[in-house]
Amino acid sequence: MLKAIQVLSSSSSSRLFGCRWKPLTTTSGTAISLSANPLSHHSTTAPRFKSSSLSLRPVSDRSSEPVRVYSTGSDPKMEAAPSPSPPSPSPTALSAASSRKINFCQWCGGATKHEVPDGEEKTRAICTLCGKIAYQNPKMVVGCLIEHDNKILLCKRNIQPSFGLWTLPAGYLEVGESAMEGAMRETWEEAQAEVEVLCPFAQLDIPLIGQTYIIFLAKLKKPHFSPGPESSDCQLFSLEDIPFDSLSFSSMVVTLKLYLEDVKSGRLKFHYGTINKRPGTSPSDSHAYTLDNHMQS
Amino acid sequence: MLKAIQVLSSSSSSRLFGCRWKPLTTTSGTAISLSANPLSHHSTTAPRFKSSSLSLRPVSDRSSEPVRVYSTGSDPKMEAAPSPSPPSPSPTALSAASSRKINFCQWCGGATKHEVPDGEEKTRAICTLCGKIAYQNPKMVVGCLIEHDNKILLCKRNIQPSFGLWTLPAGYLEVGESAMEGAMRETWEEAQAEVEVLCPFAQLDIPLIGQTYIIFLAKLKKPHFSPGPESSDCQLFSLEDIPFDSLSFSSMVVTLKLYLEDVKSGRLKFHYGTINKRPGTSPSDSHAYTLDNHMQS
Repeated sequence: MLKAIQVLSSSSSSRLFGCRWKPLTTTSGTAISLSANPLSHHSTTAPRFKSSSLSLRPVSDRSSEPVRVYSTGSDPKMEAAPSPSPPSPSPTALSAASSRKINFCQWCGGATKHEVPDGEEKTRAICTLCGKIAYQNPKMVVGCLIEHDNKILLCKRNIQPSFGLWTLPAGYLEVGESAMEGAMRETWEEAQAEVEVLCPFAQLDIPLIGQTYIIFLAKLKKPHFSPGPESSDCQLFSLEDIPFDSLSFSSMVVTLKLYLEDVKSGRLKFHYGTINKRPGTSPSDSHAYTLDNHMQS
Repeated sequence: MLKAIQVLSSSSSSRLFGCRWKPLTTTSGTAISLSANPLSHHSTTAPRFKSSSLSLRPVSDRSSEPVRVYSTGSDPKMEAAPSPSPPSPSPTALSAASSRKINFCQWCGGATKHEVPDGEEKTRAICTLCGKIAYQNPKMVVGCLIEHDNKILLCKRNIQPSFGLWTLPAGYLEVGESAMEGAMRETWEEAQAEVEVLCPFAQLDIPLIGQTYIIFLAKLKKPHFSPGPESSDCQLFSLEDIPFDSLSFSSMVVTLKLYLEDVKSGRLKFHYGTINKRPGTSPSDSHAYTLDNHMQS
């Protein structure tokens, strides 16, 4: 079985550090076994990795699969949205629909009207008393992909949506914290685990629900974890046993598939992509997405 | 003069593409001239780059410098905030201060109270009529670092804050669009330029003002650009002539410094970092920041 470890490319300074993978074989020298499609859970023998620099390689993740639809609401925990009917609404329609949820001005309490302000192109909620515009912007969900002993830490959700399904520890970023701090906080809250963040791993936008996932690669500071209030269980899963059929959200499916591909290629990359719902599929189907505009650095 | 070009690592599919630099020398074979500190504008002769794969290298960007303070307000254009007094407030204090700006419920118009809800740790604005909680989350600012003929496209701001100073085209991400789409839209609005996004380049969090910058590397689809309504000028700057003393925001200073370091090293990376205000400095000083937790993939 091949092991993949992280080697920080710089000093231990908390200010400045890079992230690089250096795949190693164990004494047995057996290569890691991962199928091309992590959903199949079947093992094939991958080529032995070299420890030299490995080139960037496109990830074969064009399988037309799922976006889980969460709420665009402002609760800092992910929520399932009412089922939108395909085809997906346009960005302008989404913006208008979003503004129409705002009935009153949060500053003066005046009733709002929903119009396109002068010099703009989108419908906004505008206060009829003070004239202020209530803009609505996408939210960031931050989380950690935690490696420990060639396994990945997952939490079983003890809350809706996706109660009973597995997720990386993740939640909404709060005002006043960095994405890295937020990811560490969520990991503590959901898995009672103290982690060291190693590097950014993925940014996955889900425009339909106004969310952007920011996922960091991390490792446990101590080998301790236990379910927080929002989790009913926390477990380390070997890469062959990741429960792809029981993951909570499409963002988790995508993140873990990209991670497995990187492990297989022997080179950790930063991934950007857009998760779009596949028309005609159920919003609760976490495999009904397309991953568009996938780029890697 | 050394040229750096992007080579996409995959096909022309819009679905899946990677980004990699392949530095080349021109026929003259002269290496690019960039000083270690891009602020100095002095030229030194850098070693000739090889076209082979180059290793990750920590960026020397520990110079204790600035965060420009923008507004946490919800206007989709960046704004200068009233000067906060150093030392910087804690995340909890920021969250509480943020919630206190909300006086009324946007859904039912009821007055809010500002308390820590059951099961939470931070002060929130809670409606006294319907009980809903108004969460506030950081906003994403998306933009493009556009390369053309070994130059970078900058826009001179025709609006406050930082009127008359130079910036990459960037603005708040809207609901219903991906970060990539938002960055392309902002580029069109501010520079009337159509671009192709090549890869993600940086995520820079500014916790003090609840903003996260997401910057993409891009190239012009056509060699045309002109100032949009929010710009008084748009210009291509050679790397030696980037106006570091006249940049609008610390996020722009950091982004361009990291870019110059990458050009110098011959290897484009994805950068994550937190921009924190240096205590005791003016919020309008775009060089008064520290770049913390700098990581690169």
